[in-house]
Amino acid sequence: MTIEQLSKQPEKEKKRVRLTVAYDGTNYHGWQIQNNEITIESELNRCLTDLLREPVEVIGASRTDSGVHALGNIAVFDTTSRMPAEKISYALNQRLPEDIRIQKSEQVPQDWHPRRCDSRKTYEYRIYRAQFPMPVKRLYSLFTYYELDVNRMQEAAAYLEGEHDFKSFCQTGAQVESTVRTIYSVEVEEQGENDLVIRVCGNGFLYNMVRIIAGTLLDIGQGKRDPMDIFTILEAKDRSAAGPTAPAHGLTLMKYEFL
Amino acid sequence: MTIEQLSKQPEKEKKRVRLTVAYDGTNYHGWQIQNNEITIESELNRCLTDLLREPVEVIGASRTDSGVHALGNIAVFDTTSRMPAEKISYALNQRLPEDIRIQKSEQVPQDWHPRRCDSRKTYEYRIYRAQFPMPVKRLYSLFTYYELDVNRMQEAAAYLEGEHDFKSFCQTGAQVESTVRTIYSVEVEEQGENDLVIRVCGNGFLYNMVRIIAGTLLDIGQGKRDPMDIFTILEAKDRSAAGPTAPAHGLTLMKYEFL
Repeated sequence: MTIEQLSKQPEKEKKRVRLTVAYDGTNYHGWQIQNNEITIESELNRCLTDLLREPVEVIGASRTDSGVHALGNIAVFDTTSRMPAEKISYALNQRLPEDIRIQKSEQVPQDWHPRRCDSRKTYEYRIYRAQFPMPVKRLYSLFTYYELDVNRMQEAAAYLEGEHDFKSFCQTGAQVESTVRTIYSVEVEEQGENDLVIRVCGNGFLYNMVRIIAGTLLDIGQGKRDPMDIFTILEAKDRSAAGPTAPAHGLTLMKYEFL
Repeated sequence: MTIEQLSKQPEKEKKRVRLTVAYDGTNYHGWQIQNNEITIESELNRCLTDLLREPVEVIGASRTDSGVHALGNIAVFDTTSRMPAEKISYALNQRLPEDIRIQKSEQVPQDWHPRRCDSRKTYEYRIYRAQFPMPVKRLYSLFTYYELDVNRMQEAAAYLEGEHDFKSFCQTGAQVESTVRTIYSVEVEEQGENDLVIRVCGNGFLYNMVRIIAGTLLDIGQGKRDPMDIFTILEAKDRSAAGPTAPAHGLTLMKYEFL
């Protein structure tokens, strides 16, 4: 082909592909690319670039912290590859390490952006309560030997529901325009004798928000604080008013629903 | 103290201590001590010897295979230490790696032996059924994308219950006097949309018996065999008549009950 012919070739058509990504966060420095650290984003970019033979950079919906797990985080990327979008999941899973697995790949409109559309996100924070830790639970649940009053936690959970300024539940230093968010539901559910799940569903979450909610509910369950304290914590609009940030490994991003 | 006085000292009193041991089997070469391999037994001996300042060797109830997990395996050992038996769990857990945790320590009669008393053991074999594997389930469940007919598996499970010669469900080469065992129950239970649990309770199990039962039920669930085949498999008294040995990581020893 001559140079003239080449320049007449139509530009390759681009398409946008959405991935539903599950991972065990134990061995990753979170989602977001960092120098010299292995992250979910860096693994996705590396394997997609290898698979599609062109540089690929994903955009993630939720940049989960180091140690946080996901059953269904969302990422999009653009590609000129002719590989059908729904086949990419199979081929990509062949290349990814076994603690990251694509659950679905699909084409979306070229202007679809995971952080610029209305969505409903569900997180679970898992707690294992017993005299001693249970090894098969250690990677995905916070262990505690404290007695927890589940009724108190449930009462406090209900006070968090609705639209509020959650500034007290946001890690200091995070840069966001608004700290107002809507929480659709906070459930505190006992599963069997030892497991407790805090399930939070909302339209968006501030940095560390679910872990600070979990840490505050744990304080309330232990009797260190009163369920009604939620009101004064919300009013304070000050991180130091809320409880501690619960450890990352108990947290799992369960699902994204786009409205 | 003179030699004469020393020889008159009463021998230190021995006591027998029973441990309930939980572990994540992922990183171990099974229970039993092997040259140059890290096993649950070798870790228990090492940490107990360190804690009690005398050579300790445990006797295990169930010598689980490489990769098999346990919530409640049983071990006993003798010690002259004055540390109260029920305190040993706390001190030993400080020394053990985080994927092994003692759930209980208690004194038992000097002649109590975990393999010489009537007991009821419960195992669970977990299966995760979906289009793609789920990373947070990968260490504790077998992944399969095959459709499984749970009704067929439940029918076959019922035929396994009772006292039978389970020679067909015993790994060849295992040396046992009798291959007759009693299975009290085999349940095949769906948990949520994707999880399937095969729960087997019996008075004793042959080498690889639960994994061969799981492999056979999986064949039946996939339609490769008929539920009624259980009868001909049992009659054959031949390992090659049964299905494959399902992978170790799906298996968890749930509990021991001493009758």
